[in-house]
Amino acid sequence: MQKFLSAHDVADIESLVNKALFYKSNPLSDSSLGAGKRIGCIFMNPSMRTRLSTQIAAKNLGIEPILLNAGSEGWALEFEDDAIMNGTTVEHIKDAARVFGQYFDILAVRAFPAFKNREDDYSEHIMKQIVKYSGLPVVSLESATLHPLQSLADIITMTEKKPAGRPKVVLTWAPHIKSIPHCVANSFAQWVNKWDKADFVITHPEGYDLDSSFTSGAQITHNQKEALEGADFVYVKNWSSYNDYGAVLNTDTSWMLTNAHLENTNDAKVMHCLPVRRNIELSGEVLDGPNSIVTHQAGNRVWAAQAVLSEILKA
Amino acid sequence: MQKFLSAHDVADIESLVNKALFYKSNPLSDSSLGAGKRIGCIFMNPSMRTRLSTQIAAKNLGIEPILLNAGSEGWALEFEDDAIMNGTTVEHIKDAARVFGQYFDILAVRAFPAFKNREDDYSEHIMKQIVKYSGLPVVSLESATLHPLQSLADIITMTEKKPAGRPKVVLTWAPHIKSIPHCVANSFAQWVNKWDKADFVITHPEGYDLDSSFTSGAQITHNQKEALEGADFVYVKNWSSYNDYGAVLNTDTSWMLTNAHLENTNDAKVMHCLPVRRNIELSGEVLDGPNSIVTHQAGNRVWAAQAVLSEILKA
Amino acid sequence: MQKFLSAHDVADIESLVNKALFYKSNPLSDSSLGAGKRIGCIFMNPSMRTRLSTQIAAKNLGIEPILLNAGSEGWALEFEDDAIMNGTTVEHIKDAARVFGQYFDILAVRAFPAFKNREDDYSEHIMKQIVKYSGLPVVSLESATLHPLQSLADIITMTEKKPAGRPKVVLTWAPHIKSIPHCVANSFAQWVNKWDKADFVITHPEGYDLDSSFTSGAQITHNQKEALEGADFVYVKNWSSYNDYGAVLNTDTSWMLTNAHLENTNDAKVMHCLPVRRNIELSGEVLDGPNSIVTHQAGNRVWAAQAVLSEILKA
Repeated sequence: MQKFLSAHDVADIESLVNKALFYKSNPLSDSSLGAGKRIGCIFMNPSMRTRLSTQIAAKNLGIEPILLNAGSEGWALEFEDDAIMNGTTVEHIKDAARVFGQYFDILAVRAFPAFKNREDDYSEHIMKQIVKYSGLPVVSLESATLHPLQSLADIITMTEKKPAGRPKVVLTWAPHIKSIPHCVANSFAQWVNKWDKADFVITHPEGYDLDSSFTSGAQITHNQKEALEGADFVYVKNWSSYNDYGAVLNTDTSWMLTNAHLENTNDAKVMHCLPVRRNIELSGEVLDGPNSIVTHQAGNRVWAAQAVLSEILKA
Repeated sequence: MQKFLSAHDVADIESLVNKALFYKSNPLSDSSLGAGKRIGCIFMNPSMRTRLSTQIAAKNLGIEPILLNAGSEGWALEFEDDAIMNGTTVEHIKDAARVFGQYFDILAVRAFPAFKNREDDYSEHIMKQIVKYSGLPVVSLESATLHPLQSLADIITMTEKKPAGRPKVVLTWAPHIKSIPHCVANSFAQWVNKWDKADFVITHPEGYDLDSSFTSGAQITHNQKEALEGADFVYVKNWSSYNDYGAVLNTDTSWMLTNAHLENTNDAKVMHCLPVRRNIELSGEVLDGPNSIVTHQAGNRVWAAQAVLSEILKA
Repeated sequence: MQKFLSAHDVADIESLVNKALFYKSNPLSDSSLGAGKRIGCIFMNPSMRTRLSTQIAAKNLGIEPILLNAGSEGWALEFEDDAIMNGTTVEHIKDAARVFGQYFDILAVRAFPAFKNREDDYSEHIMKQIVKYSGLPVVSLESATLHPLQSLADIITMTEKKPAGRPKVVLTWAPHIKSIPHCVANSFAQWVNKWDKADFVITHPEGYDLDSSFTSGAQITHNQKEALEGADFVYVKNWSSYNDYGAVLNTDTSWMLTNAHLENTNDAKVMHCLPVRRNIELSGEVLDGPNSIVTHQAGNRVWAAQAVLSEILKA
């Protein structure tokens, strides 16, 4: 694997999942694979699970993680190609990425969408510049439109927890008070479609259609109740509007998953990428109840990262 | 040792002190005790000595410390049990602690009092949730009401520096311009009482009584001059009011320790947990003079942490 | 080497450069030199290259780097000797430095000028207190007036890239929108003068004379065009006024280096310490063109730091 920015970078999802599950049972089996190498983990946005799991995965493989919070420990970066930098940005991503290329063997980067312009965000302008100018294998720690390490952990989790046969997987929109990126939802859709081992339904209120380049292959409905019927997995996530880019169009609390919503499911396992706003996105009763597998899912972030870093180190 | 939140978690203070002093002479004698393990160090409040000494202690024992500044690198955490999270908090401590439980072998946490409500702070609401939901052995890096690693370092320091016989130990209130937590004072009182190897006097202006569950056993007086007579150790510390919770009732500068205050002591050693506001809490002349042992005391933070982590790793 | 605060701490620049170049070819040749030792890296100001390169250099030598962002992870430090600390500062540098002395074997510190008072900044008041009170070998990661690790990397870079014979080296002032420290320019002048292997010219607009204690030995001119003639290396850097301390006197964009400025040079290599404001300090066309060696130069920061830490560890 030369880079890990989306499901397209993965030749075979099932074999990557198996590799992750192998590491889960044998965390230190490749503990000198990355000896003498360094991974730069650059955070342009806050992170908790992603940072910790990547750090742990790197350590398990013997590759030294070096963290940099580009904003709070450094300074604002510029992303416009021919900018005249007389404003608040102090360093251009071109120059920073080239320097990272001198210091690291692998680069892992988190950069959220700017939500100023959909074309810019959806072109993955920032990530592309980092790939181009660093010259390094780049791992996305969440980008403007995707979150592939999360999705890989999600597939790992469903592989472990699924009933016999082909499961029904439902991605349901949930309410939120803020304008939230599409990354987790886009990415989950992209991966479940490519995985192709589930009946996949996406449900959301009107106006919340995601970019069809990620969702096509899934059944899409505005009827949450119908979508949930017989579900084996319910993935709960808010996203803001794609068409009216970044807008919060609906805060209908009836979309928030409660125990009542689970009644007609197949005793569905409930998933969420975390962090979650309790009793806004997802009810406390579900999170604290027997159907929630969100903690288990978060734990799998380590093995997802370890499988990916291993593939890149071996390339 | 299953956790380290207060003196109550310590079976025998003297033997823990001896263990710390052994590590002080032999820092790397257990350098593979923690091999392959990780301690998560979560800071909800700033820290200098506590962070550095815990990191060093962990490294000395071969356990990997992973630091997270939960506020500046992550986001605001919610602590109310059934909160409807439509405000500024992004993740509930329940969910975060459960995830920490997936990533770490030991958890070390710093969380100051909120000073909104004494009952909440004195119930150690935050620390208790972290213990409950992480399922891990938890080490306090200072909590709402206590600072046990500091107190252990204080006892280590007095053990090294005490004259023959039973020393007189005085905890004196000092002026400050801000509302300061009670943790260091509560904890020092709790530990000196449990240690039971000193004559212990606490002196403070009226209105500054600490919670008697920590202080009972000590002699308490409003007469600082009388308290200091014959003292072998003077522990200087500000705290805000317990009864009028969090209030600054007194800024009488005559309570600030100067060389003149030391005249009727037994050439007392002066202690402070640091950071200290010079010439407000404690005079520069004392801090820079021969009676101050504050630097030595801060150095002992490493050995306190190493003894505690060692006991937890061996449990 | 007992400390590394300026070129005066280096007995022989050429041999230090050779040591750095040796490490560049053999990064792990002394990988156990610093075993069991710790370097505290204290940042009072943001840093990207300096932090990453010092961390990597330390790891290459087997010495454990421990980072502390003194501001954002800790609190504001006080530097006035007899301050009555009733303001916003929480700990005196005296007390903090003494504690660092307990925890580390080497101390590396970044502290920018305060720009309040030239005498204070030029006395290197902060760095001197850290040296005095920590009792440790101190490495400057940039101080109020100097940036010696940068300058060493600059000399390494010129050693690698220079044509046969004695090169012509030009330090040219560049425009900027903010009041920028003199450190990089002072330090480059000090090192090139001590190195004494180049014809050295400094060019800047009127009012921008640097402190002659650093520049004397160089030819100084206000005529940039004349200065650039036949140059082998052009070092581009903004600095604010020394005489009218900290003032921005000139923003004349014609001083910004473009390809046209390079026409009468000897196909000059262009250097900058980074971060650089594109199209303000230095044109994008130069930075992205074949004459720029800024990325290579930034890469050499690792080997400069490794050579210095190695000399200190061996002392």
